[in-house]
Amino acid sequence: MTPAAAAPPTRAYRRLSVEERRTQLLGAALTLFAHRAPDEVSLDEVATVAGVSRPLVYRYFPGGRQQLYEAALRSAAEELILCFTEPAVGPPTERVTRVLDRYLAFVDQHDAGFSALLRGGSVAETSRTSTIVDEVRRAAADQILLHLGRGAGSDPGPRLRMMVRTWIAAVEAASLIWLDEEKQPAASELRDWLVDQFIGLLAVTAATDPATASAVSELLPLETAAGPAGRLADRLIPVVGVAAHLLPPG
Amino acid sequence: MTPAAAAPPTRAYRRLSVEERRTQLLGAALTLFAHRAPDEVSLDEVATVAGVSRPLVYRYFPGGRQQLYEAALRSAAEELILCFTEPAVGPPTERVTRVLDRYLAFVDQHDAGFSALLRGGSVAETSRTSTIVDEVRRAAADQILLHLGRGAGSDPGPRLRMMVRTWIAAVEAASLIWLDEEKQPAASELRDWLVDQFIGLLAVTAATDPATASAVSELLPLETAAGPAGRLADRLIPVVGVAAHLLPPG
Repeated sequence: MTPAAAAPPTRAYRRLSVEERRTQLLGAALTLFAHRAPDEVSLDEVATVAGVSRPLVYRYFPGGRQQLYEAALRSAAEELILCFTEPAVGPPTERVTRVLDRYLAFVDQHDAGFSALLRGGSVAETSRTSTIVDEVRRAAADQILLHLGRGAGSDPGPRLRMMVRTWIAAVEAASLIWLDEEKQPAASELRDWLVDQFIGLLAVTAATDPATASAVSELLPLETAAGPAGRLADRLIPVVGVAAHLLPPG
Repeated sequence: MTPAAAAPPTRAYRRLSVEERRTQLLGAALTLFAHRAPDEVSLDEVATVAGVSRPLVYRYFPGGRQQLYEAALRSAAEELILCFTEPAVGPPTERVTRVLDRYLAFVDQHDAGFSALLRGGSVAETSRTSTIVDEVRRAAADQILLHLGRGAGSDPGPRLRMMVRTWIAAVEAASLIWLDEEKQPAASELRDWLVDQFIGLLAVTAATDPATASAVSELLPLETAAGPAGRLADRLIPVVGVAAHLLPPG
């Protein structure tokens, strides 16, 4: 709770503009919705955390808790989409690592709300909240495709696009399991493994899809032996050694 | 619609036992819920498809559409869980291929209902429907772990378990995209790619997780050059060739 929240409501009423007040109420709502399922948050609590009266919350959000939840979700979605932004320079696997770092920090900060939203089954979830979640997924896919050299204007082909979307689903699933398992392993270990998964998926998809093979062959010169791709290649040698009987002779 | 559905209701009333009638109503509900979102199915339609009166549907399902939806979902979940059952003999990747074949046939048969359920945002979804979906996911994970030689009684370790669960999430996501994209590519092509993903994830997870490496080294002798693992290994050779600069010299 900020010191401002402890100030008497009447004083706060005078100090804040409409926009500032809305932002403050949204901030209070976000704090509550981040750590609890939407059904467990009451408007009274939002008012208490914001240090204002319940009628004031209703004046700004006449739709009550549902409207506040959707506005908070919209605000969190915008924050998450910003996390995906990463300059398109350097080894692509290192860029994806940095994006995942910020994503997992967001998951860490919004733990219970993130779980409740993606798990479903809450009355607060509507086609509007699903639309917001889908927008975030689409933004994530577009950013990842950009780092694969297949940004707006260049066609990644259906298989590579599907691969990126399924990997994003796997990242979400892993995040939910991570939250369930008391945030074990360390976020950096989870992140490295998810990057390994990304590289593995690219390799197996390139094995059968020419469009992915073409993207991979353009990306590989940007990768280094010391980066995520090189580190994984090095660690894969013993695994591949055990699979020698599967390879054609010679 | 079966010929029985066209028979006059009174005659059908006499012919069917309570259990038979319940099964018939559920079958009608399943047909409707399989191809439409739950909100788009009315009790009148269920009655029409079953060839009975609306009050009769209410007698069996006093909770109306919601109760019918949950019962239909429960029945579909049991059917899907049966799809996962596969004898634990032969190359594991071929077993996973057969399981995926049946899973994708189920997705094909329940297309719109499957999408609506997993997409969320419907008022018909509750914590009860989420629980059913989670049970199916858990059953799927247990079956896959069994084919990895880590069935009940043997501990796969947290990373391999997480890998299986994230792969299942990726399979679900790919299924939803497949339905959106008018079931392109052919189910068999999607299935082979999902098996390739599975093998790729096992390989990269084995690269850093000793428990997964141990499971993989036990499984590999069961795999053949002509099976999914051998086919993928063969196709990966050119991809790995382009990545030679990432590997340590020699």
